[in-house]
Amino acid sequence: VFIESYTSIVPGLNIEELIKMTKKDVKIVSRNILENLSGRPLLEEALREKKVVLLTPGDPFIATTHISLRLTAHKMGIKTRVINAPSVLTAIFGATGLQVYKIGRIVTITFPYPEYNFYPYSSIEKICENIKHGLHTIALLDLKVEEDRAMTVAEAAELLLKLGSQVCDEILDNNTPIIVLARLGSDNELILTRRLGEVLNLNIGPPPHTLVIPGELHPLEIEALECFAHADRKVLESWNLKIKNLKRKH
Amino acid sequence: VFIESYTSIVPGLNIEELIKMTKKDVKIVSRNILENLSGRPLLEEALREKKVVLLTPGDPFIATTHISLRLTAHKMGIKTRVINAPSVLTAIFGATGLQVYKIGRIVTITFPYPEYNFYPYSSIEKICENIKHGLHTIALLDLKVEEDRAMTVAEAAELLLKLGSQVCDEILDNNTPIIVLARLGSDNELILTRRLGEVLNLNIGPPPHTLVIPGELHPLEIEALECFAHADRKVLESWNLKIKNLKRKH
Repeated sequence: VFIESYTSIVPGLNIEELIKMTKKDVKIVSRNILENLSGRPLLEEALREKKVVLLTPGDPFIATTHISLRLTAHKMGIKTRVINAPSVLTAIFGATGLQVYKIGRIVTITFPYPEYNFYPYSSIEKICENIKHGLHTIALLDLKVEEDRAMTVAEAAELLLKLGSQVCDEILDNNTPIIVLARLGSDNELILTRRLGEVLNLNIGPPPHTLVIPGELHPLEIEALECFAHADRKVLESWNLKIKNLKRKH
Repeated sequence: VFIESYTSIVPGLNIEELIKMTKKDVKIVSRNILENLSGRPLLEEALREKKVVLLTPGDPFIATTHISLRLTAHKMGIKTRVINAPSVLTAIFGATGLQVYKIGRIVTITFPYPEYNFYPYSSIEKICENIKHGLHTIALLDLKVEEDRAMTVAEAAELLLKLGSQVCDEILDNNTPIIVLARLGSDNELILTRRLGEVLNLNIGPPPHTLVIPGELHPLEIEALECFAHADRKVLESWNLKIKNLKRKH
């Protein structure tokens, strides 16, 4: 049994406990082994006719690493089987009451590299496209677990405002409602709806954090956000009006 | 502990086993109790200061019933907590190797009611919109568990061809590649890529079935579909060409 812990963060994960519970030897594998060595040590164990389990937090198939590993195993004649776990991508619907049919393209807001003049413009553009079509956007926030860095909602809000004013005129501003989610599924999960300007100074504790930028909201969605995500109905209603106007211009 | 089993189907679910494993009394609740009586009996138990568990198969928050139940509970002062399970919506990525960022709007293909002249045109329109943008579509298939009816991929394929020719000219035809998934996550799951014309006569065993209509495919996605979903590379490559042409016309 191997475990990797760099693609995501599981709040409250205790590997000692896991070893006790499963009575198995659980070894941590690094990003280096999985990406630079293409998971070689795991595949070699499997070739020695052993069953190899790789535990990964969250929903690893969002990224390509684990798909590549499965493809390599397949070519080496190693059978693979995926056992799925809950994912933030679907947990969001139960947590917020948002409707699955109104989700537009999913994005990840990545860390900018000002030294290379790199900013995540394309993610912000997709968010604005979704809003223009009245659709919600799930925005995953960048993680660099090995550097112990996880983007906070405050950092993401700053990027949304700064880049939004450059690439999508007057769609995102201080009054845009944002649903912030922290540690979803854990005992101390937090789900809040705030205006973008307020998120700039928001501290919601340790990662993982996720954002949802709502599109046009159905009355049942507004009600659910009031009950489950501390939303201010007036903010959501004026957002709905703004989107209706955007759609008209379109 | 209550369980409802009408919103989805869990292959191999055995309630007797569940009772033995959990050593709890598990009662089945009907659609009538949850929808027409708004879950009254469950809420009353909860008001008697009992902990009430409602088990539901799959991902119940796709539909509105369970959100309504949570809202009603909230208004009655009953605290609710959601414990998430895996969902077909994210299991698809591991099973097929498709990329999450290229998923367009999700649809459900519902049963037509020719007697009321109702056909699921809007779902087919959304699929064609997604294709024009190069995006994949996850299409959930309608279930009427209480009538023991679940839409098969063959029935869905017939609707895609028939309605597609009416509402989105020349996008969907017999050669469109379709990824069919049956009983995902169970021991006898089946994942195949076939042309739409072939799906018309395909029997993939008992439900639940799900379809994915691919958009433009990345080389890594094509490779994964070949390895994990028995795809014919040529079919996928000519589909990619077709989408490139559609985009050019756009």
